[in-house]
Amino acid sequence: MLYFMSDYTEGAHPKLLKKLCAENLVSMPGYGDDAACASAKEKIRAAFHRDDLQICFLTGGTQTNLVVISTMLRRYEAVVAAKTGHVSVHEAGAIEYTGHKVIELEAADGKLDAGVLAAYLETYYADANHEHMPFPGMVYISHPTEYGTLYSRAELDALSAVCRRYEIPLYLDGARLGYGLMAYDTDVGVDDIVRCCDVFYIGGTKVGALCGEALVLTRQNMPAHFLTLIKQQGALLAKGRVLGMQFDALFTDGLYWTISRHAIDMAMALKAAFREKGYPLYIDSPTNQQFVLLTDEQMARLGRDVAFSFWEKPDAEHTVVRFATSWATRPEDVEALKALL
Amino acid sequence: MLYFMSDYTEGAHPKLLKKLCAENLVSMPGYGDDAACASAKEKIRAAFHRDDLQICFLTGGTQTNLVVISTMLRRYEAVVAAKTGHVSVHEAGAIEYTGHKVIELEAADGKLDAGVLAAYLETYYADANHEHMPFPGMVYISHPTEYGTLYSRAELDALSAVCRRYEIPLYLDGARLGYGLMAYDTDVGVDDIVRCCDVFYIGGTKVGALCGEALVLTRQNMPAHFLTLIKQQGALLAKGRVLGMQFDALFTDGLYWTISRHAIDMAMALKAAFREKGYPLYIDSPTNQQFVLLTDEQMARLGRDVAFSFWEKPDAEHTVVRFATSWATRPEDVEALKALL
Amino acid sequence: MLYFMSDYTEGAHPKLLKKLCAENLVSMPGYGDDAACASAKEKIRAAFHRDDLQICFLTGGTQTNLVVISTMLRRYEAVVAAKTGHVSVHEAGAIEYTGHKVIELEAADGKLDAGVLAAYLETYYADANHEHMPFPGMVYISHPTEYGTLYSRAELDALSAVCRRYEIPLYLDGARLGYGLMAYDTDVGVDDIVRCCDVFYIGGTKVGALCGEALVLTRQNMPAHFLTLIKQQGALLAKGRVLGMQFDALFTDGLYWTISRHAIDMAMALKAAFREKGYPLYIDSPTNQQFVLLTDEQMARLGRDVAFSFWEKPDAEHTVVRFATSWATRPEDVEALKALL
Amino acid sequence: MLYFMSDYTEGAHPKLLKKLCAENLVSMPGYGDDAACASAKEKIRAAFHRDDLQICFLTGGTQTNLVVISTMLRRYEAVVAAKTGHVSVHEAGAIEYTGHKVIELEAADGKLDAGVLAAYLETYYADANHEHMPFPGMVYISHPTEYGTLYSRAELDALSAVCRRYEIPLYLDGARLGYGLMAYDTDVGVDDIVRCCDVFYIGGTKVGALCGEALVLTRQNMPAHFLTLIKQQGALLAKGRVLGMQFDALFTDGLYWTISRHAIDMAMALKAAFREKGYPLYIDSPTNQQFVLLTDEQMARLGRDVAFSFWEKPDAEHTVVRFATSWATRPEDVEALKALL
Repeated sequence: MLYFMSDYTEGAHPKLLKKLCAENLVSMPGYGDDAACASAKEKIRAAFHRDDLQICFLTGGTQTNLVVISTMLRRYEAVVAAKTGHVSVHEAGAIEYTGHKVIELEAADGKLDAGVLAAYLETYYADANHEHMPFPGMVYISHPTEYGTLYSRAELDALSAVCRRYEIPLYLDGARLGYGLMAYDTDVGVDDIVRCCDVFYIGGTKVGALCGEALVLTRQNMPAHFLTLIKQQGALLAKGRVLGMQFDALFTDGLYWTISRHAIDMAMALKAAFREKGYPLYIDSPTNQQFVLLTDEQMARLGRDVAFSFWEKPDAEHTVVRFATSWATRPEDVEALKALL
Repeated sequence: MLYFMSDYTEGAHPKLLKKLCAENLVSMPGYGDDAACASAKEKIRAAFHRDDLQICFLTGGTQTNLVVISTMLRRYEAVVAAKTGHVSVHEAGAIEYTGHKVIELEAADGKLDAGVLAAYLETYYADANHEHMPFPGMVYISHPTEYGTLYSRAELDALSAVCRRYEIPLYLDGARLGYGLMAYDTDVGVDDIVRCCDVFYIGGTKVGALCGEALVLTRQNMPAHFLTLIKQQGALLAKGRVLGMQFDALFTDGLYWTISRHAIDMAMALKAAFREKGYPLYIDSPTNQQFVLLTDEQMARLGRDVAFSFWEKPDAEHTVVRFATSWATRPEDVEALKALL
Repeated sequence: MLYFMSDYTEGAHPKLLKKLCAENLVSMPGYGDDAACASAKEKIRAAFHRDDLQICFLTGGTQTNLVVISTMLRRYEAVVAAKTGHVSVHEAGAIEYTGHKVIELEAADGKLDAGVLAAYLETYYADANHEHMPFPGMVYISHPTEYGTLYSRAELDALSAVCRRYEIPLYLDGARLGYGLMAYDTDVGVDDIVRCCDVFYIGGTKVGALCGEALVLTRQNMPAHFLTLIKQQGALLAKGRVLGMQFDALFTDGLYWTISRHAIDMAMALKAAFREKGYPLYIDSPTNQQFVLLTDEQMARLGRDVAFSFWEKPDAEHTVVRFATSWATRPEDVEALKALL
Repeated sequence: MLYFMSDYTEGAHPKLLKKLCAENLVSMPGYGDDAACASAKEKIRAAFHRDDLQICFLTGGTQTNLVVISTMLRRYEAVVAAKTGHVSVHEAGAIEYTGHKVIELEAADGKLDAGVLAAYLETYYADANHEHMPFPGMVYISHPTEYGTLYSRAELDALSAVCRRYEIPLYLDGARLGYGLMAYDTDVGVDDIVRCCDVFYIGGTKVGALCGEALVLTRQNMPAHFLTLIKQQGALLAKGRVLGMQFDALFTDGLYWTISRHAIDMAMALKAAFREKGYPLYIDSPTNQQFVLLTDEQMARLGRDVAFSFWEKPDAEHTVVRFATSWATRPEDVEALKALL
């Protein structure tokens, strides 16, 4: 079976395991207060060109989203997101479980438009009854989006400008950040992320780690007593070192970027293969997730040898499915898939 | 100043006050376990033609909505509502504060369409990832809607049929139920409400009471330990009698229907006046709320003598405003307003 | 049947009903933004000798407690209370439902001791692991306590001093505040309450109102967007005027104090009667709640003619029961009860 | 520096790392639906002698506690625990954050007594006002307790009997379960745990894993839609395989028991050393945590070469500290510590 089901179907990049094994018996304090976490933070600060970034490691993406949103919003505030955003659709109501509404705005190709955001905020504050509505207190975007698409630098700047005007933090979900920044044609780099966002996370789970996300705060805006808050949500890992060592390895010698680029290379080869074979692409994605429209016949046939994911069902005879590459995708698997198309 | 700002700008219908005064010094147990509540419940059961209705009195509309939704949903469930529903927009995130998402569907004139609902539910269950999404566990509608519109009997039946098919309770917010059932052309009566809904409430606050809503459960489906749950949300009134006596008076000699019909008469007179004077109606509302499109000049001029509510701003030069009548609206006030148009 | 079951078994003092009836048809804006609320606030400020008190009206005691505690605590904080406090025991877990722990300290006769509190806080901060515990973020006391007892001025000052030292607000639950301040021998007056507490409430439900509590903030410390927060908990009354008018009447010509003193007079007569007849008092209460130890035989016999409340069962043959007086207790009822002892 | 600070200061037992490395590049589905998890579950069922145990892997102890308690309690219920229980004291209010009260009962040496529990439950249901209190809906115990102590088989049976009588599930927090079951003199074995408990967890984090706890349900009582509930709390690991592989290794050839016994051997050697050198033991602990009373002078001197944990401060001149052993403790470190005493 060829695995293109998702970007979390293998373990960790071998260099991460090597690091975990090498320092396995070194004794370290718990809860992230260890040398491995400290070293990883320094390397991330260097990679993102800012000495003063506040960093904290968490275990998974939904967990990071709910910790960020629930600790940075005040109780009367809601988070604004694209209707197709991960927090809007695929987190089992995790944000609402923390007591906050997700205000869902219309989106195209997974992207929140600065104009749509500005119009919403203007209407909100113009409404004489807005004290009876939850306040928009944060804007959530993902980059790449859930549809594999990317914001341009100008789009990020525009979103950031709207957020600044309304004094609302901009939060970027970077579950696949490496795959976004290493896309072929993007004009968005690490400096843009840091400049535009008040808070973002660098995805590890989907980019080479066993588990782990690096949360980054760019404005000295880490909530007071953050450790206590994280503990309160069951998100404080006793052996924080497990996350620190993995991120240390990911940000040693640019490994995070190298493996991300590899996944992009594999995805672009896949995309070319689909095009060549006449399979319609549902979205023109420049990143590691490719969305293809299959007939029921194609789906049944391919499904015998290839694992991919259901995405949505546009009509009775077709299905949109997702093929994902990752740091672990082998060129021979792409070739093998191509042969099956 | 002429008051058309809302339907809760006066106290209570004098017969309710008379009842409160008459039995004021009679000693009764607390928390709704009193003779006045028992009598009111009996009268409501008679008015809605069902001996087995379970009834409970709460203080206000948002409170009733959050108690119903948070006690009847399981933790992994969300409530489905029109995008324009009160729970979606104007309750300050109260539902989300209880941990549950409001899944907002497109609506026309405030109404949730059975077809739209069915399509959503079908898509939801067809999605292979639906265990990562909150489950649709209840459907919320309001009647009249927030735009003053009404469901037809066929529409209610269709919604109810979809809910039954998916085994999801249908909850009807009847904050202005009297004004809906007493509209001139509606084919929906009390029996339809009871037949179609698993739970609904009969609004008191906006229909003649100082405060109070009568929650009605139609399928012996009152949550276990409901009193404890209500107390836990700070919604248990020590002197439950205050609500019981008012509903007893409202359902004595059909007062609830009489005063509701009066408000409809006043609203239809208002509507005729707007039409006669050439004011465009934003929505064709058959109930006590009338939505009118004003120019800025009209708004400023009328605003000097009349209190009405801001509704929304469709463009820079116009505003939609709401004029509400109620049990307390006097014919001479309608005449006076007409003279000012 | 003689009613001594609680202090909320009758309606409202007739002067409150008179006020509600007199202004019943005056149109006023909703949500507490009306002239009646404004007038009531002014009168309360005058009665408590401080022009700058921030005041807000809520419907009931548990509701007020949960609104205050959940809006004034930060997410990582807990409220500290006597083990026997109302928030600890009798609110169905309402505080925890808002996400906050009640840290329960040992108490004698319902009172939290400043020394016990200081020792707890000292130990807490001395604990190297205290970041893994909820922070003590507020102190809750009730006056009178749930056992009818009262703090002395020195005790209140001592509690206040500890709170100031740790920069924790002191919150006083005054569900029966009038009965406390009008006790015969207390040295605590309104100025002490205002000086010692950061926030407190003046109980209306148990002291002459149909419903309603007046929340008072003494340090310009009303939470931002308080109306939105209240709405979010379903605690915002559409017709805020109902609460405003009642508190206006309660604080006109000192009615609140007069009726409170009446209840004390009745309670002291009752206490004397119990003593005279040889019934052991379980607690020496100077306020409107009297706790008496009954044999099973006495309980059965009295229960035929008198309504009182179960309190606790110290052993198999005895029961502690509560007799409560109120603004509504008639001297002839006390006499009648005495005759039955 | 000698590390006796806690049982989570090293990585994982080498056999677990070996397993992770060996299967690292095998593609598997996400969210625990993989062969490694399935195999681990089978081995746990075999080790606990019951084919029908329902098992689920989570990341950490507090996370497991909050998931279990918040998904198994109904909204009006609270969990009953020892006053010194981990959920009562050291989880930053995590249980309350999910909306549930922890009812704290008096405990001796960390243990909840069946008699104390029964008395509480009896009093609770005898109280005529118990509908105003949160319902006791689960009993939480830890084994070993937070003080290293153990229940006897008779004590566990007695607790279980009380729970059955009141139809309340008994939940056992086994963060250090291996260290409890491998203690020298305990009469409690795996069959007792399964027989007495409705739900328990087998701690991995503190017993040889990088992270991970195995939640076990013994009565086919896994909550409906458990995956959705876990996701909603941010506790669903994308690469569930990481937990599965580790537990598979832990329960291969009895590794879990062997390494637990090793920690006990080390702890008993430490205990003997303390006794020999005249250091008073604060508690007579038969498990891997040893609590010693140090003078300030001893604490300062030992602190230069040994890492241990602060526990509590009984008076101004003494401190109770904890020395913990684990699967990773080396005999030479125990000898080195002994030499320093």
